[in-house]
Amino acid sequence: MKDYIASNKQRYLDELFDFLRIPSVSADSKHIPDMITAAEWVKDKLLAAGLDKAEICPTEGHPIVFAEKIIDPSLPTILVYGHYDVQPADPIELWNSPPFEPTVIITPSHPQGAIFARGACDDKGQIYMHVKAIEAMILHNELTCNVKVMFEGEEEVGSENLGTFVKNNKEKLKADIILISDTSIIGNDIPSVETGLRGLAYMEVEVEAANRDLHSGVYGGAVANPINVLSQMIASLHDADGKITVKGFYDKVVELSQVERDELEAAPFDLEEYKKDLNIAEVTGEKGYTTRERAAIRPTLDVNGIWGGYTGEGSKTVLPSKAFAKISMRLVPDQDWEEISDLFMTHFKAIAPPTVKVSVKKHHGGQPYVTPTDSIGYKAAFMALEESFGKRPVPTRGGGSIPIVALFEQELGLKSILFGFGLDSDALHSPNEHYGIFNFMKGIETIPLFYKYFRELSK
Amino acid sequence: MKDYIASNKQRYLDELFDFLRIPSVSADSKHIPDMITAAEWVKDKLLAAGLDKAEICPTEGHPIVFAEKIIDPSLPTILVYGHYDVQPADPIELWNSPPFEPTVIITPSHPQGAIFARGACDDKGQIYMHVKAIEAMILHNELTCNVKVMFEGEEEVGSENLGTFVKNNKEKLKADIILISDTSIIGNDIPSVETGLRGLAYMEVEVEAANRDLHSGVYGGAVANPINVLSQMIASLHDADGKITVKGFYDKVVELSQVERDELEAAPFDLEEYKKDLNIAEVTGEKGYTTRERAAIRPTLDVNGIWGGYTGEGSKTVLPSKAFAKISMRLVPDQDWEEISDLFMTHFKAIAPPTVKVSVKKHHGGQPYVTPTDSIGYKAAFMALEESFGKRPVPTRGGGSIPIVALFEQELGLKSILFGFGLDSDALHSPNEHYGIFNFMKGIETIPLFYKYFRELSK
Repeated sequence: MKDYIASNKQRYLDELFDFLRIPSVSADSKHIPDMITAAEWVKDKLLAAGLDKAEICPTEGHPIVFAEKIIDPSLPTILVYGHYDVQPADPIELWNSPPFEPTVIITPSHPQGAIFARGACDDKGQIYMHVKAIEAMILHNELTCNVKVMFEGEEEVGSENLGTFVKNNKEKLKADIILISDTSIIGNDIPSVETGLRGLAYMEVEVEAANRDLHSGVYGGAVANPINVLSQMIASLHDADGKITVKGFYDKVVELSQVERDELEAAPFDLEEYKKDLNIAEVTGEKGYTTRERAAIRPTLDVNGIWGGYTGEGSKTVLPSKAFAKISMRLVPDQDWEEISDLFMTHFKAIAPPTVKVSVKKHHGGQPYVTPTDSIGYKAAFMALEESFGKRPVPTRGGGSIPIVALFEQELGLKSILFGFGLDSDALHSPNEHYGIFNFMKGIETIPLFYKYFRELSK
Repeated sequence: MKDYIASNKQRYLDELFDFLRIPSVSADSKHIPDMITAAEWVKDKLLAAGLDKAEICPTEGHPIVFAEKIIDPSLPTILVYGHYDVQPADPIELWNSPPFEPTVIITPSHPQGAIFARGACDDKGQIYMHVKAIEAMILHNELTCNVKVMFEGEEEVGSENLGTFVKNNKEKLKADIILISDTSIIGNDIPSVETGLRGLAYMEVEVEAANRDLHSGVYGGAVANPINVLSQMIASLHDADGKITVKGFYDKVVELSQVERDELEAAPFDLEEYKKDLNIAEVTGEKGYTTRERAAIRPTLDVNGIWGGYTGEGSKTVLPSKAFAKISMRLVPDQDWEEISDLFMTHFKAIAPPTVKVSVKKHHGGQPYVTPTDSIGYKAAFMALEESFGKRPVPTRGGGSIPIVALFEQELGLKSILFGFGLDSDALHSPNEHYGIFNFMKGIETIPLFYKYFRELSK
């Protein structure tokens, strides 16, 4: 089967390129037709891979693609989860190749070439590894577990309708473990398994001063400027030690033991290389924690977007009426995203000066999550990676969020295995997102080993 | 002549409407053809008004329209200055009528109707008063002074090329006084003359953190967020008393005497009405000064625009590479705009943390200005307004900037009379800019009186 996979490389890539050409941007309503095209494309490929049934399940938003192959009800069942939607491509002018026309380029991290396209790694390239691995297993009669596949179209916008779908389809989704490839390994020579993810609370704020845009000469200095006020409010959200000042924000944060912290720090990491890659003179963050801890086991608050006033060419001496920001917080166990959203809302309104009116809305969120390393799912992933890479994998904690993972546990009682093959340097959510061809092929090879070990350990 | 003016009202308005339909936005290069159309339109109207010659003078940017009528070289000469360019119309969605299709609407401040259009008050409506007043004076053989007219197309973007034009055409521009209608009166029943203007220094800043947009889950908390950093930097530009923290900023500010301050405070002003008009609960500004002082005799710093990260629909968990802001300062005597620009640049770079790279560019600027109330120009304006309105005018200080006024004094040795007829509530630089029909007609009536008194007092 390994030879078969190797010899089908070009076909796999050609198919993936077709997938990447569909601009399935879930955040933007003008891409609704592309979302449908992408869902249908995935469904067809799942049928072609040999799954017994595949269907497009409508939701209030973008549809979910579901498929399954039950070889023997007495065997364990793996539920594969992933998403066919992608982040918006903007700022498009910073892409070196068109975001929806996959281009292979050799890079220092990817000497065998990387596929540059929006969604190449997050998550189209990674879900397509599963489709092709299942195809190879079925073709060679080596599918060792039952398999169910659920690919959604709203991961990048909060998975709101997936929650409802999961709640209403508990029987259909019955399984023993959930397998997800939407995270990364440390390096192409350092396999790793993520043992945890951060949660997310995403907010949008509006600060309104006067009821209309004003001339900055006539009113400037006497009437509040909403941009200056918003800047002051944002600035006050962190203290001098990089701690978040939202009242109650840290109340439920679980501090890791020194042993756990040491274990995570054992994974290779080169701070100088990290700074060089980003072209920054200094890192920053919460006092008392390392860079890796700040990016994984500690909660954060970042402004993801800000706008207000005149932003065109040249100059305009306007005192704007309103200013806006999108602000998100990454959360860690046991912070609750809904509670944190409420704390933020209360705090942000409380710090507003009487010169302005503030409104805050919740975009979406998700709970933080931890995978137990003594579970058979974790062990199977560990063994599969060890065999495939010929190296012991390293446990890591991921800083990103897959909000649905906590919901899977709550609703289905299932743990999720974070079995990703990307690299952190693959520019996810950025211009020039890419995915190594090595990583893509390694994933297709390694997935069948997970099935093998999961079945063995389940006995 | 007064009757003649009254009976030509509809024709004056129809002509002005044609003028307002030309979208002569100087800040945006796609409007270059409209700028030329506007300049030609103005030139034709000046010739039709009876001026002896009118010409379009090319510059490195938008052209200047010049015209003159010399009736007798021994008589005093008035140089009328104004601008035919307008501010951008955005945000267009906030206009209640199309910005370049003049619409007459009755408002509480304008019971005789106001013309809603970009440039209606600033400055097309006001320069067209001069064209029509000159036409009436020539037609009735009542032109009592020589007149020169100079209308530029770059006032809203810093008048950079007008400076060169003035320097190179001192003979052509020789006059005894400059008359400018680009400011406001207190109310339609309270005539006023502005005795000073603030200067301006307009800057644009860029804050760069990492060399690319990053995933806020993977890097958030560990790498500087340029929006958070820019917000902190902007917040630090004012202290708790509303003073500007730029080092050296106040060094050359001339404090007004209590007598001068009392004189300016004598003009009618209703703070509750002011707050109600803007729908704000509280005013703000520099401690120790009144609202009117903050908006006129004190220097200010306002962010006119800010942008960075994802600003589209929905959410994107991006840690952006860059954030930007347009920041302008209003200046008072004896602050020098070039010196203040340099102080700002130095200060802004000095407060940048080592996690980011900052660049600052100067957009444009202008010096603050004061008109002496004992000059014959000021007296003629006072007398003309008193006769026309039947009320003693009030001296005021304007918070806006006409950067070229200080340059006129420096290059031509001429004082400028700020003889505006707008209202501060006319939404200059804002959506729904408008100009009262009463004000437009009052201007046309009052201008000939200025000529009369200026000639009498010049004897």
